[in-house]
Amino acid sequence: MAKEIERKFLVRSQDWRDKAISEASLIQAYIAVDENRNVRVRVKDGTKAFLTIKIGHSALVRDEFEYEIPVSDAEELGRAAIGIIIEKKRYRVPHDGKIIEVDVYEGFYSGLVVAEVELSSEDDAFNPPPWLGEEVTGDRRYSNMILATQDLAPELINGVFHQAL
Amino acid sequence: MAKEIERKFLVRSQDWRDKAISEASLIQAYIAVDENRNVRVRVKDGTKAFLTIKIGHSALVRDEFEYEIPVSDAEELGRAAIGIIIEKKRYRVPHDGKIIEVDVYEGFYSGLVVAEVELSSEDDAFNPPPWLGEEVTGDRRYSNMILATQDLAPELINGVFHQAL
Repeated sequence: MAKEIERKFLVRSQDWRDKAISEASLIQAYIAVDENRNVRVRVKDGTKAFLTIKIGHSALVRDEFEYEIPVSDAEELGRAAIGIIIEKKRYRVPHDGKIIEVDVYEGFYSGLVVAEVELSSEDDAFNPPPWLGEEVTGDRRYSNMILATQDLAPELINGVFHQAL
Repeated sequence: MAKEIERKFLVRSQDWRDKAISEASLIQAYIAVDENRNVRVRVKDGTKAFLTIKIGHSALVRDEFEYEIPVSDAEELGRAAIGIIIEKKRYRVPHDGKIIEVDVYEGFYSGLVVAEVELSSEDDAFNPPPWLGEEVTGDRRYSNMILATQDLAPELINGVFHQAL
């Protein structure tokens, strides 16, 4: 089990692109969703799959349990997804001794670009680069779980999300 | 992923005990519970742990995905259990070319004894031995998920359950 401490930002320009050191294709589906927990499957680059359980109320700190599973299991579990399947490309961008993960959504959420940085503790300092915009840590609208399961999504895509382009 | 095809019975006598070929101690907790799916952790004999996802509406046939996980993870996940923790001893009893699993509940459900047999298909014949009583396949009261999460339990223990002793 790992404690997950993350801050999340909207992305306001493309200036991160030439700094990216890796790109991965992620497809993820929620299998169980409850008030303070969720169970997710994710397929990475079509070749590896993971089952992840997140438990906890706080958006900043949560318990996370992750296990590698067969890709074929993930695909079968995905057919039982709650809500829609999330598709995105994830880029890793080094900045100031940390790695910023930039998620460029595809499919239903095409146009949405969100960045996350993992911190070593709740008071770990982080100086955002200029290409990061508004901080949305704790804004549940940008949680993948909410993106997958809530109906208010189209409105958000046409409104807030496209500011990031 | 395995298709799970099971029939379930109450146990009406102790005549299975001298036929049991193994005994295991099981502790299990539900991490997510939804109408047609659940996610469970189970610790076996304190030394092995499994994460299991069951999906499907039918009591007789369900998709089951099971992964071994560290015992320490299962114990941490157990602290986030929905409902109570189920404790039982499971005995394997050979009968007529099949294995009957007899679950003797402990703790909160002490007194409840239920048997399950796994079938190779939905029309696989099964001739119950005389120590099995009423068939309760599909009776949701005897699902571990319901036993863990529903409040009607004490009434059942004093009523139906103790007929099995």
